[in-house]
Amino acid sequence: MSLGAAGFAELPAPPYWAVVFSSRRSAGDDIGYGEAARCMVELAQQQPGFLGVESARGEDGFGITVSYWETEAAIAAWRAHAEHAAVRATGRRDWYTHFELRVAKVERAYGGGHAA
Amino acid sequence: MSLGAAGFAELPAPPYWAVVFSSRRSAGDDIGYGEAARCMVELAQQQPGFLGVESARGEDGFGITVSYWETEAAIAAWRAHAEHAAVRATGRRDWYTHFELRVAKVERAYGGGHAA
Repeated sequence: MSLGAAGFAELPAPPYWAVVFSSRRSAGDDIGYGEAARCMVELAQQQPGFLGVESARGEDGFGITVSYWETEAAIAAWRAHAEHAAVRATGRRDWYTHFELRVAKVERAYGGGHAA
Repeated sequence: MSLGAAGFAELPAPPYWAVVFSSRRSAGDDIGYGEAARCMVELAQQQPGFLGVESARGEDGFGITVSYWETEAAIAAWRAHAEHAAVRATGRRDWYTHFELRVAKVERAYGGGHAA
């Protein structure tokens, strides 16, 4: 289970790795995009070393998706996955006007909150 | 200038540090929240070592804000900032049902895209 209640990833204690993907959506092709995004999450969940994912996109089309991985090698393997690479190419061409990707090692983590 | 065109942070080459803040908003107090969020971004921009920030929140109330910093020490100093600490306490009490915070060292980064 990669998605915790309410969209939070349920992660082990650090260290682990994060891929921060910031993007701005192009106008149009929402159906193809939504389907591909769901497929990519399902595919990522099957990859060795996948820990979880969190994602948010505002009405202005700017979004951030953070996927979490056990090791940097797991990220590299996911990057090399053929289907993922093909969908990435479509994303660059059709779905995003711009994106930034940052690969980071999570050193510390904590959370909090209360019942809604 | 911390916000690039279209919401992207304009960052130097890695390494640098990221604070990934995932949160789910409580219902209500939107005015107080919006003002405080703007103030915190303005205050963060004045801190030594601040590099930039990106933020997205969906209609479901789940959001991700990533702030970027030159060093881990800059993050610690921002965490200790009195006004920031006071606003954080309000956030935990009034604005978020839950949050997760991860501090990570960005090792690699790349981007792409095309004109909209």
